[in-house]
Amino acid sequence: MGARETVGVALLGAGTVGAGVAQTLAAKADALSRYAGRRLQLAGVLVRDTGKPRPALPPGVLLTSDPAALPVADNVDIVVEVMGGEQPALGCIESALRSGKHVVTANKQVMALHGPELLALAAEHGVTLAFEASVGGGIPIIGPLVRDLAGNRITGVNAVINGTTNYMLTRMAKEGASYEDALLEAQRNGYAEPDPSDDVDGRDAAYKLAILSTLAFRCTVREPDVYREGIRQLDVADFVYARDLGYVIKLLAASRLHDGAVQARVHPAFLHEQHPLAKVDGVYNAVELEGDLVGWAMFQGPGAGASPTTSAIIGDVLAIVRASASGGATPPYPDVRERVPILPVAELETKYYLRLRAYDKPGVMAQITGVLGEMGVSLASIIQKEVPEDAGTPAEVVIITHKARESAVQEAVRQLEALSVVYGALKLVRIEDGSA
Amino acid sequence: MGARETVGVALLGAGTVGAGVAQTLAAKADALSRYAGRRLQLAGVLVRDTGKPRPALPPGVLLTSDPAALPVADNVDIVVEVMGGEQPALGCIESALRSGKHVVTANKQVMALHGPELLALAAEHGVTLAFEASVGGGIPIIGPLVRDLAGNRITGVNAVINGTTNYMLTRMAKEGASYEDALLEAQRNGYAEPDPSDDVDGRDAAYKLAILSTLAFRCTVREPDVYREGIRQLDVADFVYARDLGYVIKLLAASRLHDGAVQARVHPAFLHEQHPLAKVDGVYNAVELEGDLVGWAMFQGPGAGASPTTSAIIGDVLAIVRASASGGATPPYPDVRERVPILPVAELETKYYLRLRAYDKPGVMAQITGVLGEMGVSLASIIQKEVPEDAGTPAEVVIITHKARESAVQEAVRQLEALSVVYGALKLVRIEDGSA
Repeated sequence: MGARETVGVALLGAGTVGAGVAQTLAAKADALSRYAGRRLQLAGVLVRDTGKPRPALPPGVLLTSDPAALPVADNVDIVVEVMGGEQPALGCIESALRSGKHVVTANKQVMALHGPELLALAAEHGVTLAFEASVGGGIPIIGPLVRDLAGNRITGVNAVINGTTNYMLTRMAKEGASYEDALLEAQRNGYAEPDPSDDVDGRDAAYKLAILSTLAFRCTVREPDVYREGIRQLDVADFVYARDLGYVIKLLAASRLHDGAVQARVHPAFLHEQHPLAKVDGVYNAVELEGDLVGWAMFQGPGAGASPTTSAIIGDVLAIVRASASGGATPPYPDVRERVPILPVAELETKYYLRLRAYDKPGVMAQITGVLGEMGVSLASIIQKEVPEDAGTPAEVVIITHKARESAVQEAVRQLEALSVVYGALKLVRIEDGSA
Repeated sequence: MGARETVGVALLGAGTVGAGVAQTLAAKADALSRYAGRRLQLAGVLVRDTGKPRPALPPGVLLTSDPAALPVADNVDIVVEVMGGEQPALGCIESALRSGKHVVTANKQVMALHGPELLALAAEHGVTLAFEASVGGGIPIIGPLVRDLAGNRITGVNAVINGTTNYMLTRMAKEGASYEDALLEAQRNGYAEPDPSDDVDGRDAAYKLAILSTLAFRCTVREPDVYREGIRQLDVADFVYARDLGYVIKLLAASRLHDGAVQARVHPAFLHEQHPLAKVDGVYNAVELEGDLVGWAMFQGPGAGASPTTSAIIGDVLAIVRASASGGATPPYPDVRERVPILPVAELETKYYLRLRAYDKPGVMAQITGVLGEMGVSLASIIQKEVPEDAGTPAEVVIITHKARESAVQEAVRQLEALSVVYGALKLVRIEDGSA
């Protein structure tokens, strides 16, 4: 950053978050320059259509639709990227870093797919790439992980990091809403996109878990390395069983470092109602970290929204300006380009909830428990709902297992589904209750 | 910091935390130097008695009992102060800063009494004074507050930040232990000192709240500015009433910024059982922050212990080394030497739990409720325990008020205690349930 009195900030993207950042830079101009030691000046905003009225942006701001110009402009010191999506965001970030601009991004997709290389590029050019806003909205999590907890060997991350699904799951649990109704309500309230796939299929959470895991374990974990299941298959009955059994259903994002290999997964999970993540409701997010020195720490707050995301972005911007004022850049992130083995979900060991429908014939339970027993899966409990009056209708059976290996459970599921007494597909939800 | 290949670390204090830091520097030497970019070298340890065997320290470490020498020694770049107490720690920190050494301290007392001046001294000498370990043990809280959330105007801090009392209160609530038994058990487990006054009287929490409030509100809040009540007066009956009414009793540390004035207080409080701080049990700590952009964020983890405190200290040390490697110091803290008005607790408005004993005579309840009514304190509920068989024994009366002004409630308490039908002193506990 030059020695100019003001710091030029380019804003790439003028959606909800972009407008929030622009408004905050204007509204808090004095407080921010007092803290930063220099005045922050909005140098321009990259928009798709310069002709569209932008009532949310402060008047007089330069608008441009050329993604090539703003990131490298002379009067720009810091590029704030809030476009989202892989391209053209990635190209803008790369050209900004190559031009010696610091970059602050909220882009989980770019960071989950290209983070390690972009961080190396930033280090090479002596500039900062900061991305606190890419995970957990306004919750400080990347800063604590990379700086305050840097003395730890982090061995585990457990998180509820998708606000959309957490809102939906909370409605389904507390009001008995169906998946479809919960989705419609989330869309009406602006918590879900018209196409909700990235959220409900767990991809958004997988992006964020890849970023957290990369920083936590100091090696490259990309989004495709994360095993992923979404919440579409959950229905009202699962929430009733969960509650009766003392559990809460969350979309869990969890990763572990085992003997130099990483296991990372996003899927619905039964969490014991006393689990710290079980109480994180609605659009709130939370991240638990396990480290050898700290033991356990948890961070909670708003996982999305213009204002919390602006909080994270402004925090990153201020850190960059303050570091440059004291003669340096913010320290580069450690090199995280190392690849380590990724463990498949088949090697997971946990407890399982299995729900299936079976015809009430003599010996059915013996067949079902026999399959599980043969695969070495031992049962903690088995619930058979009242047999329906019409003997031709299959009855519902819910099985809770002790800790078992995923590969064995999956094989048992295949064999159970092949039984003539079992009707349709089984439902499997993993249980994480912290106990053995 | 010089351009030497190694970074010299002086350790002042060799108690539990000091030994933990020394052991971690030795055990993690390779990982820490990889992260820091330079090798950390323990240059010496300040101890009271150099002749005492120190099995907890790595062999071959230089021991000295001269507090004047080590903080200014040529081969020392960073001074880690874990002696505790005001002196000689304060003198050591000042001379280290004046000699251009960075200082990392876990000393809440020094920071709560002299923090703003020490931070200014560090800035004047171009060095860093870091103190993440002084509040909340291993929980990253100072870093997030000063850096990640720096764009916010922080208006409120609520915390459970004393592990000793939280351990005791958890035992009293969950097992019906008396104050005395809970204290003995805490002492047996090493959670309470032989003289527990600083913990049970709330002074330790007040130190930490003063530090947090100073950083949150960017003005000087010292320990004597914090209104303070400890937990000695709580007894088993209060926990029973709390539970029956849906509350949990915590030693709450809370501060607010109101129109440029600060109110800060530490006292036992009834928290609604759904309050985020109500679930923080045992020796865990948690800090809630309210800010204009982030809304609400909460940080939880181990509030004390050698290993978590070492986590915070090593994080601070690494940040200093990494910043110096990238050509600067870590950015100085903002100037927090401004004094603002401190609001007395008399201006608090909250709900109250009042417990008193009264003789069962006609018109007693009318007298009691009359006093409260005259003071403008309206009642949410009033519970009178069964009248004892011996009519001469006073019966217990528990009153829950609506939101009221502390000064009015205190005046009502004085008048109630003066009534001839009221036996002995009233007990007052503030209620914070987040509702109006």
